[in-house]
Amino acid sequence: MTRIGILTSGGDCPGLNAVIRGAVLKGRTVYDQEFVGFLDGWRGLVEGDAIPLDRSKVRGLSHQGGTILGTSRFGPYQGPDGGAQNIARTLERMGVDAVIAIGGEGTAAASKRLFEEGIRIVGVPKTIDNDLGRTDYTFGFDTAVEIATEAIDRLRTTGNSHKRCMVLEVMGREAGWIALHSGTAGGAHAILIPEQPESIEQICEWVTSVRDRGRAPMVVVAEGFTLPDMAEAYSDKGRDEFDRPRLGGIADVLAPMIEERTGIQTRATILGYIQRGGVPTAFDRVLATRLGMAVTDLVADEEWGHMVALHGTDIVRVGFDEALANHKRVPKDRYEEMRIIFG
Amino acid sequence: MTRIGILTSGGDCPGLNAVIRGAVLKGRTVYDQEFVGFLDGWRGLVEGDAIPLDRSKVRGLSHQGGTILGTSRFGPYQGPDGGAQNIARTLERMGVDAVIAIGGEGTAAASKRLFEEGIRIVGVPKTIDNDLGRTDYTFGFDTAVEIATEAIDRLRTTGNSHKRCMVLEVMGREAGWIALHSGTAGGAHAILIPEQPESIEQICEWVTSVRDRGRAPMVVVAEGFTLPDMAEAYSDKGRDEFDRPRLGGIADVLAPMIEERTGIQTRATILGYIQRGGVPTAFDRVLATRLGMAVTDLVADEEWGHMVALHGTDIVRVGFDEALANHKRVPKDRYEEMRIIFG
Amino acid sequence: MTRIGILTSGGDCPGLNAVIRGAVLKGRTVYDQEFVGFLDGWRGLVEGDAIPLDRSKVRGLSHQGGTILGTSRFGPYQGPDGGAQNIARTLERMGVDAVIAIGGEGTAAASKRLFEEGIRIVGVPKTIDNDLGRTDYTFGFDTAVEIATEAIDRLRTTGNSHKRCMVLEVMGREAGWIALHSGTAGGAHAILIPEQPESIEQICEWVTSVRDRGRAPMVVVAEGFTLPDMAEAYSDKGRDEFDRPRLGGIADVLAPMIEERTGIQTRATILGYIQRGGVPTAFDRVLATRLGMAVTDLVADEEWGHMVALHGTDIVRVGFDEALANHKRVPKDRYEEMRIIFG
Amino acid sequence: MTRIGILTSGGDCPGLNAVIRGAVLKGRTVYDQEFVGFLDGWRGLVEGDAIPLDRSKVRGLSHQGGTILGTSRFGPYQGPDGGAQNIARTLERMGVDAVIAIGGEGTAAASKRLFEEGIRIVGVPKTIDNDLGRTDYTFGFDTAVEIATEAIDRLRTTGNSHKRCMVLEVMGREAGWIALHSGTAGGAHAILIPEQPESIEQICEWVTSVRDRGRAPMVVVAEGFTLPDMAEAYSDKGRDEFDRPRLGGIADVLAPMIEERTGIQTRATILGYIQRGGVPTAFDRVLATRLGMAVTDLVADEEWGHMVALHGTDIVRVGFDEALANHKRVPKDRYEEMRIIFG
Repeated sequence: MTRIGILTSGGDCPGLNAVIRGAVLKGRTVYDQEFVGFLDGWRGLVEGDAIPLDRSKVRGLSHQGGTILGTSRFGPYQGPDGGAQNIARTLERMGVDAVIAIGGEGTAAASKRLFEEGIRIVGVPKTIDNDLGRTDYTFGFDTAVEIATEAIDRLRTTGNSHKRCMVLEVMGREAGWIALHSGTAGGAHAILIPEQPESIEQICEWVTSVRDRGRAPMVVVAEGFTLPDMAEAYSDKGRDEFDRPRLGGIADVLAPMIEERTGIQTRATILGYIQRGGVPTAFDRVLATRLGMAVTDLVADEEWGHMVALHGTDIVRVGFDEALANHKRVPKDRYEEMRIIFG
Repeated sequence: MTRIGILTSGGDCPGLNAVIRGAVLKGRTVYDQEFVGFLDGWRGLVEGDAIPLDRSKVRGLSHQGGTILGTSRFGPYQGPDGGAQNIARTLERMGVDAVIAIGGEGTAAASKRLFEEGIRIVGVPKTIDNDLGRTDYTFGFDTAVEIATEAIDRLRTTGNSHKRCMVLEVMGREAGWIALHSGTAGGAHAILIPEQPESIEQICEWVTSVRDRGRAPMVVVAEGFTLPDMAEAYSDKGRDEFDRPRLGGIADVLAPMIEERTGIQTRATILGYIQRGGVPTAFDRVLATRLGMAVTDLVADEEWGHMVALHGTDIVRVGFDEALANHKRVPKDRYEEMRIIFG
Repeated sequence: MTRIGILTSGGDCPGLNAVIRGAVLKGRTVYDQEFVGFLDGWRGLVEGDAIPLDRSKVRGLSHQGGTILGTSRFGPYQGPDGGAQNIARTLERMGVDAVIAIGGEGTAAASKRLFEEGIRIVGVPKTIDNDLGRTDYTFGFDTAVEIATEAIDRLRTTGNSHKRCMVLEVMGREAGWIALHSGTAGGAHAILIPEQPESIEQICEWVTSVRDRGRAPMVVVAEGFTLPDMAEAYSDKGRDEFDRPRLGGIADVLAPMIEERTGIQTRATILGYIQRGGVPTAFDRVLATRLGMAVTDLVADEEWGHMVALHGTDIVRVGFDEALANHKRVPKDRYEEMRIIFG
Repeated sequence: MTRIGILTSGGDCPGLNAVIRGAVLKGRTVYDQEFVGFLDGWRGLVEGDAIPLDRSKVRGLSHQGGTILGTSRFGPYQGPDGGAQNIARTLERMGVDAVIAIGGEGTAAASKRLFEEGIRIVGVPKTIDNDLGRTDYTFGFDTAVEIATEAIDRLRTTGNSHKRCMVLEVMGREAGWIALHSGTAGGAHAILIPEQPESIEQICEWVTSVRDRGRAPMVVVAEGFTLPDMAEAYSDKGRDEFDRPRLGGIADVLAPMIEERTGIQTRATILGYIQRGGVPTAFDRVLATRLGMAVTDLVADEEWGHMVALHGTDIVRVGFDEALANHKRVPKDRYEEMRIIFG
């Protein structure tokens, strides 16, 4: 019998509970694995704070948002009890043979280091932003896109009623996947992502052309998008004017700029935390369940230093190093593909 | 045959199209009324800008958000062609015998004045905020509450995963109905509304007590809520610090205050325009359809100066003056009813 | 301190958990009431099978469908331990001072009899069908209508793509409220309810007129609707042909009749149990929470034999006898109001 | 300039309008292609019945269910004007240079034959059931899975409240993909698909084991599933008893069998047409839009006889013959993967 500790780390993400459920149900049935759950991500591992995870604990979890284990931004090398050596001792003391770490890029990087320093660890990729390499999608992303798309559907009717331009800001600090997919699904007239600079002139040209044919322009912008000359753009307003709206987000910067240049009333909405909570879509539940089930194979096969991933319709195995070497940004051709129908 | 002009005025609201559809379908069938639609609210009336509204134009509209007539904040006494005399002339020129004005408090007030100055006008009450008197509910409100409640459901899981306090700001400038209903539905631990002052100390007490029993506090706040001593509360930070967050909303003011005083990580979300767009709930579609159908009776009975309203399950008639004399704020007992289970 | 036993009886209904939560949270806070929950409706009461209900047990329940207490069709006069005398003894043995029974017409009738025979009992009305008298709405109804309306929205697009007539059967054995409201909200071209006979000829006339203007007819029918001459209508097909489709529901009877007489391809869908499960709408959560809170006042005031009810926006008190004397059927004028826009 | 005729054929499917929109917007912008839409699938092509499709006609379509072109089960070799030669003449007469056929297996087979007989035709795969080969997913499938999953979520609470076994029948005549994915997402205790026989004894074993640990069993069954010995299973009841329930569907056969053998009250729900109508999920809108855009490349490149398809995250090109040679059934290992956590 192998005793496995599971932890969920980083930002909340719909599907975490489905991963935990999938792993426990399969591990117990097929491999006679036993599970404990470390609380609040790496903190629970570092401090040896865990709860038992048996079948009854995880049943009915597939549709529940959030994580029953809690999560945090705490890192495994943090604090007096952090580091691979301390962790190894803690695991031994608790009788835990292996660790399943569910998390994003930071978690994968920490897991890789722990693995290289001797910890028996495997991973499940998790990022709302869908920006982890070597996996087609990460769970949580589909839910975020669906929520953002529903928001666009709602904003569109209000835009049309008032002949206003609506700017919706969605998540995506370094990768614009949520903006690209929700903007495509919602029929946005401009999609702005961190990977691709667009000038305010170009944006206003799109907005104006939509207005000119009698429709209400819809702009979807990822939080990480910046205008190529953002500082300058505001220079005529003075620093104070420039600083303020940033408190909100890039949508709060863009909306007044668009309104001023085009004369079209423009309103900003920042979707925020709603994107990463609540009931996961069926797609995310299936993906998360399959990843959770498959990660028990990694443990059974002692494939330490690997994580599970989605390739097409298959669940495959990928080294942490490989995943980390490939940041998944929106490639130019995917963006250009959509850009031709902007405006 | 009576020729009727319909207009939709003020902020967008789910159900406007259902009202238009209900009026046209019933008016044509029962009373042989004929309809035109003034574009962009009062502007269309003042400028004589209208489109014909026959059955085929309104079929299938019950589930569509927004208004096919457009809306604006333009008033009937605005511009060189405004005012009752000009409007009377415009109506005569267009062969329009009566006006149905769908709108909120401002629209009702303007309609009352036009009626007193001789215009044959009736109304349908419309406000997302549900703050118009002499009607149990206005359409659009139920949809806004549903959307806000879904947001709370999503934020709750993220709050729990991170052990954070989540603050959600919903609409409600002078009345806290959306906050009260969505907060009740979502099981919020504190609901803050314009009608009822609560001190930051009291709010933090609720938040702390929730945290102390291991749960994530959820605070729902109406945009019109103000702390009794908001200026003072920030006085130690200087004016600059105080002004900035207001750009966003009251949630952006409260979140850092709660975090600072309780030590609990606190995150704000402002729901914004999403609340007033998109597909209406079934409740709002039924209410809007019934109001639209009933307003044609007002015209047939020449009950000028009246609007239709909901009393219990009945559609009744109410004078503009009566509706305007009764601002519907959340009464103290309704708030106290919920307040006892806060925290 | 008063010790109260709560039970949920009859068919499942979204909002039951919100009632339980409302009662426990308010009762404990305001009145120092203590609660137990009888399991599986009257069975738990008769057999003395109960669980403690404290605050921690009910927190977070407002958005959960179903009932944590279980429900059944078991009656209080059933079995060797049934009847008022036995129940009185059981309650005394368990130290339970009063009973809150949440249920529909059958539950109200049984509660009335128990009350008359000396049991300290109060009630909360519950019926998906909305057919209990002296209350504007019952919780669960709004959710059922919303689900049915979403189904109509989906079926409409498929009907239009195929130019087919779609027949949707919804709940409503003796009252057609769900059909009336969802049909109105969904823009159905015919609504058929138990209270109002319509001939197959009339139905086909509506269907044909819709087809003739190029649209796909949508018929919503309550399960309790019957054709005035249903037996005859099938007489030419023989008994076997007649009996079979009834296994499914009235929609399975109507669809082939419509197709045969109009030549329009017609498809039936029976919505079934989906209508009474799952997450309640915000409207139902608010109503259920308020009813749950208010029923603790009935206990505190020792208003035995009464139930809480909704009048307009107020929660009021109604005697079981009064509620039972008034079956709430769809009144002729409400049906006629909609019927004029059929076809 | 190339003039292209688009048609949508077979059963309705969420995303058809998004394909049409994607093709027209890109084709006009990038390739100066011009579009007409044949009405009601192949019928419009055979009879030369088409409407112009310009940009304004397709704007705002991405979120609309159904198809603005209509669809039917009519085939291109049907009727006096059918067949490749007649069609070639019709296309020439109409000035149409190429055909885009959006449809399932039947459409692909007919398209292949037309291509072999000289028609310049390309395709977009469409099947709710997801059973077309050489593409990871087809649009419409994700929406169907989402709807089925929401139904499971609702039925689960009712099952638990009543301690009943709920049987949900979903689409899937020859392939069980919808059942597999929705059952996985919804946490079903048994998933029954056409590809994998399971005995009634095995099914009842799963059901009983769920009941024995105090939960309500949830069974998801694809419409094409058959018991290995279905005729025999009913032999003791006589033919009449056997025939009747089949009118409804396999769920109506299974429910009474489960109830009789396990003693657990069991209720069947057949989801039906709701699965293939209405607003598409964001996933399906993105996929459909991308396929629609990419199929214009096929025309520009004169890759007749090919269709677009999804491989991982890429849109690729596949010959009709290749797609048709590979029926995509649920492979044994995908089913076994889930089967281990049944019960």
